[in-house]
Amino acid sequence: MRTPEEYKESLQRMRPNIYKFGELIEDVTIHPATRHTVAGHAKIFHIAQDEKYHDVVTTKSSIITPELEISRYLSLIRSEADMIVNVKMKRLLFNLTGTCTGGRCVGWNAINSMWATTYDMDQTLGTDYQQRLKNWLISAQKNDITISGALTDPKGDRTLSPCQQSDPDMNLRMVDLDVGERDGDIVVRGAKVMICGVAASNEIFVLPGTGYKEPDKDYAISFVIPRDIEGLTIIETRHPSDLREFEDGFDIPVTDGGITQAYLLFEDVVIPKERVFMAGEFKFSLNAVLNFIMSYRASIGGCVAGQGDVMCGAAVLVARANGLSEKQFNEKLTQMYINNETTFGIGIAAAALGKQHKSGIWQPDPLLANINKVHVGTLPYDTKRIAQDIGGGIAETGCIPSHKDFMDDEHGYGKLLQKYLKAHSDAETRVRAARLVEWLTLGAGVPGCMHGGGSPQGAKLLIRINSDLERSIKYARELAGIDEPVEPKK
Amino acid sequence: MRTPEEYKESLQRMRPNIYKFGELIEDVTIHPATRHTVAGHAKIFHIAQDEKYHDVVTTKSSIITPELEISRYLSLIRSEADMIVNVKMKRLLFNLTGTCTGGRCVGWNAINSMWATTYDMDQTLGTDYQQRLKNWLISAQKNDITISGALTDPKGDRTLSPCQQSDPDMNLRMVDLDVGERDGDIVVRGAKVMICGVAASNEIFVLPGTGYKEPDKDYAISFVIPRDIEGLTIIETRHPSDLREFEDGFDIPVTDGGITQAYLLFEDVVIPKERVFMAGEFKFSLNAVLNFIMSYRASIGGCVAGQGDVMCGAAVLVARANGLSEKQFNEKLTQMYINNETTFGIGIAAAALGKQHKSGIWQPDPLLANINKVHVGTLPYDTKRIAQDIGGGIAETGCIPSHKDFMDDEHGYGKLLQKYLKAHSDAETRVRAARLVEWLTLGAGVPGCMHGGGSPQGAKLLIRINSDLERSIKYARELAGIDEPVEPKK
Amino acid sequence: MRTPEEYKESLQRMRPNIYKFGELIEDVTIHPATRHTVAGHAKIFHIAQDEKYHDVVTTKSSIITPELEISRYLSLIRSEADMIVNVKMKRLLFNLTGTCTGGRCVGWNAINSMWATTYDMDQTLGTDYQQRLKNWLISAQKNDITISGALTDPKGDRTLSPCQQSDPDMNLRMVDLDVGERDGDIVVRGAKVMICGVAASNEIFVLPGTGYKEPDKDYAISFVIPRDIEGLTIIETRHPSDLREFEDGFDIPVTDGGITQAYLLFEDVVIPKERVFMAGEFKFSLNAVLNFIMSYRASIGGCVAGQGDVMCGAAVLVARANGLSEKQFNEKLTQMYINNETTFGIGIAAAALGKQHKSGIWQPDPLLANINKVHVGTLPYDTKRIAQDIGGGIAETGCIPSHKDFMDDEHGYGKLLQKYLKAHSDAETRVRAARLVEWLTLGAGVPGCMHGGGSPQGAKLLIRINSDLERSIKYARELAGIDEPVEPKK
Amino acid sequence: MRTPEEYKESLQRMRPNIYKFGELIEDVTIHPATRHTVAGHAKIFHIAQDEKYHDVVTTKSSIITPELEISRYLSLIRSEADMIVNVKMKRLLFNLTGTCTGGRCVGWNAINSMWATTYDMDQTLGTDYQQRLKNWLISAQKNDITISGALTDPKGDRTLSPCQQSDPDMNLRMVDLDVGERDGDIVVRGAKVMICGVAASNEIFVLPGTGYKEPDKDYAISFVIPRDIEGLTIIETRHPSDLREFEDGFDIPVTDGGITQAYLLFEDVVIPKERVFMAGEFKFSLNAVLNFIMSYRASIGGCVAGQGDVMCGAAVLVARANGLSEKQFNEKLTQMYINNETTFGIGIAAAALGKQHKSGIWQPDPLLANINKVHVGTLPYDTKRIAQDIGGGIAETGCIPSHKDFMDDEHGYGKLLQKYLKAHSDAETRVRAARLVEWLTLGAGVPGCMHGGGSPQGAKLLIRINSDLERSIKYARELAGIDEPVEPKK
Repeated sequence: MRTPEEYKESLQRMRPNIYKFGELIEDVTIHPATRHTVAGHAKIFHIAQDEKYHDVVTTKSSIITPELEISRYLSLIRSEADMIVNVKMKRLLFNLTGTCTGGRCVGWNAINSMWATTYDMDQTLGTDYQQRLKNWLISAQKNDITISGALTDPKGDRTLSPCQQSDPDMNLRMVDLDVGERDGDIVVRGAKVMICGVAASNEIFVLPGTGYKEPDKDYAISFVIPRDIEGLTIIETRHPSDLREFEDGFDIPVTDGGITQAYLLFEDVVIPKERVFMAGEFKFSLNAVLNFIMSYRASIGGCVAGQGDVMCGAAVLVARANGLSEKQFNEKLTQMYINNETTFGIGIAAAALGKQHKSGIWQPDPLLANINKVHVGTLPYDTKRIAQDIGGGIAETGCIPSHKDFMDDEHGYGKLLQKYLKAHSDAETRVRAARLVEWLTLGAGVPGCMHGGGSPQGAKLLIRINSDLERSIKYARELAGIDEPVEPKK
Repeated sequence: MRTPEEYKESLQRMRPNIYKFGELIEDVTIHPATRHTVAGHAKIFHIAQDEKYHDVVTTKSSIITPELEISRYLSLIRSEADMIVNVKMKRLLFNLTGTCTGGRCVGWNAINSMWATTYDMDQTLGTDYQQRLKNWLISAQKNDITISGALTDPKGDRTLSPCQQSDPDMNLRMVDLDVGERDGDIVVRGAKVMICGVAASNEIFVLPGTGYKEPDKDYAISFVIPRDIEGLTIIETRHPSDLREFEDGFDIPVTDGGITQAYLLFEDVVIPKERVFMAGEFKFSLNAVLNFIMSYRASIGGCVAGQGDVMCGAAVLVARANGLSEKQFNEKLTQMYINNETTFGIGIAAAALGKQHKSGIWQPDPLLANINKVHVGTLPYDTKRIAQDIGGGIAETGCIPSHKDFMDDEHGYGKLLQKYLKAHSDAETRVRAARLVEWLTLGAGVPGCMHGGGSPQGAKLLIRINSDLERSIKYARELAGIDEPVEPKK
Repeated sequence: MRTPEEYKESLQRMRPNIYKFGELIEDVTIHPATRHTVAGHAKIFHIAQDEKYHDVVTTKSSIITPELEISRYLSLIRSEADMIVNVKMKRLLFNLTGTCTGGRCVGWNAINSMWATTYDMDQTLGTDYQQRLKNWLISAQKNDITISGALTDPKGDRTLSPCQQSDPDMNLRMVDLDVGERDGDIVVRGAKVMICGVAASNEIFVLPGTGYKEPDKDYAISFVIPRDIEGLTIIETRHPSDLREFEDGFDIPVTDGGITQAYLLFEDVVIPKERVFMAGEFKFSLNAVLNFIMSYRASIGGCVAGQGDVMCGAAVLVARANGLSEKQFNEKLTQMYINNETTFGIGIAAAALGKQHKSGIWQPDPLLANINKVHVGTLPYDTKRIAQDIGGGIAETGCIPSHKDFMDDEHGYGKLLQKYLKAHSDAETRVRAARLVEWLTLGAGVPGCMHGGGSPQGAKLLIRINSDLERSIKYARELAGIDEPVEPKK
Repeated sequence: MRTPEEYKESLQRMRPNIYKFGELIEDVTIHPATRHTVAGHAKIFHIAQDEKYHDVVTTKSSIITPELEISRYLSLIRSEADMIVNVKMKRLLFNLTGTCTGGRCVGWNAINSMWATTYDMDQTLGTDYQQRLKNWLISAQKNDITISGALTDPKGDRTLSPCQQSDPDMNLRMVDLDVGERDGDIVVRGAKVMICGVAASNEIFVLPGTGYKEPDKDYAISFVIPRDIEGLTIIETRHPSDLREFEDGFDIPVTDGGITQAYLLFEDVVIPKERVFMAGEFKFSLNAVLNFIMSYRASIGGCVAGQGDVMCGAAVLVARANGLSEKQFNEKLTQMYINNETTFGIGIAAAALGKQHKSGIWQPDPLLANINKVHVGTLPYDTKRIAQDIGGGIAETGCIPSHKDFMDDEHGYGKLLQKYLKAHSDAETRVRAARLVEWLTLGAGVPGCMHGGGSPQGAKLLIRINSDLERSIKYARELAGIDEPVEPKK
């Protein structure tokens, strides 16, 4: 398995094709727009060498003989235990990086989703997709590469299907060109948007956007590509306070952790058939997406719990720095932990009540997975609010002069700022702690937990579908001794 | 295993020692104050014979050879799977009876708590308590008896320990008398209060009230007794609208389900040593209580979820009866299911992250168990509110004339009431459905989920103890690059 | 103005026409089903004689010269100050009776609603309804009578208008009969349901049920009648634990306060034209209802705040009786007061931002009035939950033996119960306090605040209508510099 | 009264003494760090000329004869009506600028607080502070100057009083120097931190930090100074995404609105006695603060409601731009308006239930004012969450490429981004709307509503003090018929 250095070198060897602020990023490991997230992802390789965390982030391959130790992010999730470690690992990585290392978990989820989906396709259609996937995955495991995942299409008008859009490229699709591709290769055009962590990844696993029907079959595609494949241009989006990442000093307090989200622009990219896992089998696109989101929604509770843990710590650091004891915040801290453990726990429960797909993949309970998506779109906001409450005025919106002003020597006011920012702790400690609260609650560390992996509203729809209202009605009727069938008014 | 009839006959054979409204209850299976809860408990025996539910309510004994099929309520909980079925069984029984069958689960929990506690006592002190417990339990399993559990003492002044009370009897205790007991037998005096389902039970398993210190050692007692033991007098408490249980008609809409809670008055009761599992070992009393409440708090989420399921059904029944479609209540119903699944799911998670005690007992995760206690003291109130919201004015407080008035023939207005109570459904259906909402939300079916198994405030204390704040702080310090140890202000 | 005794005598002089449990209530002032609410209403007369409260419950008539001191419940609400006292008076009466004295405020609201509505009718149609109303009101003020109000029709199938119902009587209507009525008199048939406090009233003011269209014009009626008018039969509904009101002792802890809700059955009742204020003017029925509910929804926040005040006190009483200091419940008590003051405050705000109708009536702000209706359907549930939380196990569901058992002398256990129920306070004090929490939170004192005055869902509809979304969009567009008109997708 | 141009010119005439990022800001009206907030404040002068808003932002002076039309921000608040317009004006300004124009309302509040406080001082001590204040205020009104307000001291260790701090300068204080001041002048040293809008103001009104005792009397000071007074250095703090304000394009979507918060460093500043309104009268410092915060907390509900209005509009703009109808978000929008109107309404209620101080100042109800502070620290977080929920993934964290990338022509991908960002609306419209949601919910437009004007925790303390628990207990005791005085356990 790779060392952190080998991981970074692998990124440096790639063709630069990522832009931000109109500038091509030559080296993602040192460019200010991407180095934070790369450093965060590198921590995964780092802790793989740490006895304390080794068993969390590594496992044995189920497809390589003799058994090989691999990164858990490249493994097939085959049991309740595997799924539980998934949730725990996400929590751990948020603990250690303070934010999302989404350049790995989305790709991992995509691999597992397509493992089940290719199994079903092959069984039904006689295709050989799973073998292709297996071949690629064995190689990926052996080379210990980092794989991000891409799901969301631009979509255009949300009320129209892909083929109804005035511009057919609003969802990623196969186009019928002759650009030198071999038989079985596909050529794709369009975009994937808001894709997490591609700058930190070697390859990108692409899923179809949603459930498609026959006329949309050119949109039912799944494949994996090197991040620097010809024809792919990547634009990093902004995030809150992102320009601070270009500054010196501690106004971005976290150096080994950060988030990026990108727009991927596909200009007739040729995908070799060995890397294609769906190409027009529209009936299976919904499965691919559902397989993905159930697992994603079950485990995202670990993410927000992990970030919530850090918020508890950060808020108490500011309080202590202010000269206050955390005892007076007991009720609030307890609520923060309740929020954290609730999203974590529902994820664990979804894992525990899951079942094994015929392909071997462990599928979490869909009702609990979607319940968790709703909590993930709600409870962290409450946790952030409490962190700002405990942290006080300097933490709430990071209401502190800049690092440059704090260090000012030229005008003479730097010393005064340091004097007045001191409380129970040193001024710098107090500022760093307050900046961490800011970074976590409305700064560069805020992940998109509301809409990542789909929106709460969509989850609510699935909750209603997966809740057995008729059974509830039956129980109620029996208890109340009602014989009349009580049908809803038409 | 017993049939429902054999179960009821076993109750009828017992000495009457239960009172309500100044009257001795001669036969608990037919007296209006107790027949509802007995009928609810009888359902457990009924569904044991139903293929659909058989595996939920029965299991194999782990202490009888050859393996015997026994009631799950008499089993040792030895694995995650056992604990998960515990949660599911509670949900199921609330589904089927609409309320609490607490005459079984508390006793079951007590057995398991004392199995672990007696193991620890025997290991440390060289006592033989577990063998006594095992002997009794084998007999209980073979005879398929029903065992309730008793935990709560009157306590007197909450700020004083048992031995500091002006009246030493305010907590159940051993007294030093010579009333003909054998060596090793104990004589107990005092009371246990708010004890669920004793009227439906054959025996009562008694736990010490809390963690005791040396001067309180006479209070550190655990034993099991026949419900009709000499010297024990039982007074059933009131519950909302309990007098309706003495009426005819459907104003209590549920006939096969109901709740009782009793005060047990011990007037120097002699407990034979074979039935004594703790007698003065004060250091183990806290363990006994903690073992009990962790498991209780993990599984109570199943209870409130099960009652919540029925509330969904009942509310929709009224809405349909009113001529409304449940579609307009989608958002509200979804919230009800989110509430239900959250308490259920956290219970499942506590089971999944549990671990096995050396005695073989599965102990759920204490943090998640206590998180759930807080949710159980909050979310069901929201679910009830929504049920009343959906059900409309007649459901909110059961604002409907009495069954007697509904059926009135003498004065001629009964027909008018029936005429005006008709909507999309028959008048009787509509009334029964509204009465069910009333019964569930502020009637005789309301269980004491807030304080049963301990109060949310106590759970919050345990949450803070089980949350690793220092670890959170460590993560935050590392992320923010803070070297200064940031200690709290003294 | 009447004394409490004169008030009760006025009730005793009336024809008995109220039934409960199949029995005609001969004297509402002493019958157990009605005496509590009569005693509660009598308190209004009592405190009118108390300097401390006199100015709250009395005012000067604006329609009698020379100025006469009258009950505020018979006054026209003509200013912000009048409306604010309305909110405060409701809070006070809940403070003093623990529950709803709905036999006055609904009628009062109806008078004011119809004062504005008759003004509009007369202006538009040339009718003389306001003069009729004024004549009747002058007499009512002079005689200081008690007037309840009736709004809700049985409605039948909620999706059909009155004239579409299979049974045309499902909403109260004029029928075309010749039963000896004078020209201009009307004959009404149907029912009004869930009507609060009629047993405590001398007369009943009837409003049309909702906004009607031409085919429903026979349903557009408003009038006032003596409660004992020929042809009217009244059936009192049940409420939680209502049979306890027939017992001795303190299991119903409140003697001078109680709630009744009745079904009024109109069997071709002749209403003399002097008492008819709408008779077919369907275009004004919506106004009548809106006038009513805006004022009702503005002031109901005072009601639930007043009951919430008592819950704070009751919960602390139990805590103190248990030997606990309220200090440990500070956070919870603060939340209770926040809930109380929020509903109270929004009512005050609705009054403050109201405006004067041309008829002189003060109309509260409709947006804030409806906001309050939503809070009133939510916050009191939270307040009740906290009261049960603070009160502990005996308060949560009133888990205490009956008064009869508590006093038992025959079997000898009464003394034991008293012994074990003692804590920091006397046993009786502790039980009374716990019973009060029970009575307030799930007993006979629970008012129908969710659906009284219309449901939260209806209020939400009015909130959306009264919220100026287009103005919000305009602000946002201007701020974001968006020129394109951004129309919603059709 | 000044025109917007005259206002800006008045700022340009001042001595530069404000720094950010190590740089002296020469002209606050054009420097990127301050021009947004100056433009926002200029809007006040602009709308004073607009008939639609004129009566909101102007009023008549109560201290100048003949009556002069003045800015409302310079007026004395003397009636309920004045206080209500205060709340409404704050809402309006947030509507029009999207954020806080705190360079005026804090100073205004300070003037009113000190008007009452100087009255009390003069009455008690025979001082002439109010005359000084009046003289200054007449001049301020005539010249129509802009006055910010400064309250918060650095404080150092929160558990120590000012004189106990190891550094006595941690709270602003008078020092005993001889630096050429006249008799009665004072010299002040220390700092005020997190001061809103000073860059947009001509003068700064300073209040003492909290209630002081005798040993802290040098800290009991109040005065008003030109913003550019000798010895005062001002450092602007950071806020989320503040560097974007230095960019071109629409990534900061709002040009005429913005927030600044500064640290004011006082290096032995001489304050002439005519501008000193408290100088050592420590017994009145608590009054000064309480007068300030009651009014502040009553009216801040208007602020967050006004920003909430814009969030409703912004969220719907994104939804429409995405091709969605707002109808599907009805429930969510209604909740946003409920949140907005609740904070607005409680502010109105606090005004309506206020009373007039002997000095003529209208003081809002302290209980409701503090209730509102708690809501203001809670409800806006919910409103922001819903805005992000409705706005979708691009709005949640502003997950869109930068304006520079959006406009890119050099690398050719700008056109592709524009292509893929188009939905139902133009790409630019969609981006601007999403950026507005970002700006409002976690960008440069987020005000410090949690801790501004004091923290919710402090407000809760005042709620408990202002809630009459003993009265609640009295009501409960009377209702429950409890004679025993039920005292809390010591």
